[in-house]
Amino acid sequence: MTMEKTRKGSDTVWHHATVTRLRREQLNGHRGAVVWFTGLSGSGKSTLAHEVEEQLHRLGARTFVFDGDNVRHGLCGDLGFSIADRTENIRRIGEMAKLFVEAGVIALTAFISPLRGDRERLRRRVGENDFIEIHCHCPIEVCESRDVKGLYRRARTGEIKEFTGISLPYEAPEHPDLLLESGTEPLQTCVERVVALLQQRGVIRNFEERNI
Amino acid sequence: MTMEKTRKGSDTVWHHATVTRLRREQLNGHRGAVVWFTGLSGSGKSTLAHEVEEQLHRLGARTFVFDGDNVRHGLCGDLGFSIADRTENIRRIGEMAKLFVEAGVIALTAFISPLRGDRERLRRRVGENDFIEIHCHCPIEVCESRDVKGLYRRARTGEIKEFTGISLPYEAPEHPDLLLESGTEPLQTCVERVVALLQQRGVIRNFEERNI
Repeated sequence: MTMEKTRKGSDTVWHHATVTRLRREQLNGHRGAVVWFTGLSGSGKSTLAHEVEEQLHRLGARTFVFDGDNVRHGLCGDLGFSIADRTENIRRIGEMAKLFVEAGVIALTAFISPLRGDRERLRRRVGENDFIEIHCHCPIEVCESRDVKGLYRRARTGEIKEFTGISLPYEAPEHPDLLLESGTEPLQTCVERVVALLQQRGVIRNFEERNI
Repeated sequence: MTMEKTRKGSDTVWHHATVTRLRREQLNGHRGAVVWFTGLSGSGKSTLAHEVEEQLHRLGARTFVFDGDNVRHGLCGDLGFSIADRTENIRRIGEMAKLFVEAGVIALTAFISPLRGDRERLRRRVGENDFIEIHCHCPIEVCESRDVKGLYRRARTGEIKEFTGISLPYEAPEHPDLLLESGTEPLQTCVERVVALLQQRGVIRNFEERNI
């Protein structure tokens, strides 16, 4: 492995990537993208992300879902729940999702991500074409009545001091790429609307159901 | 999207993933894994990682290379070069690579990663079966004579204060999964040895060249 061998032409050092995003996308038969679900706790983000992933996988797409379970204990295990740490949490997830896009994967994320500024930074950083923001809009009464993890109860008793929708604001997107009424629209309708949007935006197309 | 619909059986909340690592690997036709190249600056890690990726991509595999270019300005953009920050840098890359494995991707990494403790933590965290450590062993004189980025020169003049191999130690792996003499073995031989190891370890198999 001499220096001669590590150069192509006069300026390019050979260790630069030859496998590009485009080649990976050609191999996959679809584009990489970030599908960013935002909404209150209990608004259905995670359920939706996983169900959309199931549909995309059946269509033969490469997918991955990021949620609290696989991020908070790992990549962001050093972060707490202060405003600064929440912002850093979202930043890192965005940076990671961006690399998944580069890898040709459709990255679906399920985080409350309550701050408009954080989400706008994501959009700029990931890139307008690759960032699809989906607002899971659901009245807080409905979210609270679900309370799958018992978090609202603990927020009401004061056991959890800072909780979005109770003691911290949720800043709804002003122009999301898709607005789902996830409190009233059936899950299957929501899933279909997301998949249709991905087709419309050219992320997936010309797919045949593979039924794997 | 009622609560009834979000439950399967009595204990399982439906938002748990149905698309598993195994299903992604079946779709891809290979396993996910971390191929971790370690060695001095100029030892050929990046060149090797990219050339192995090229071979794997031609075989139809899903791959991604992490290196300073796509990590230091993004995910780890808040970190400097103190010992603590370097350790955190490696930790985050490991956590991210672990998620790529979960996504069914062969993640190749090209970082000096000079500390044995950092790499041993990675191996435990990623998992013995999924972590393949490759030592690019190359005499520092050879690395310095290449000096692609002019870093050795700047380290010798003192412009860069802390530089592995000059003013900071490199702790060579005691039992790497593969030891490459990347200062003397031809690049193509090194690449073939890595690909052969991936076949031997069952990461890739039964592939036909696709020539994409």
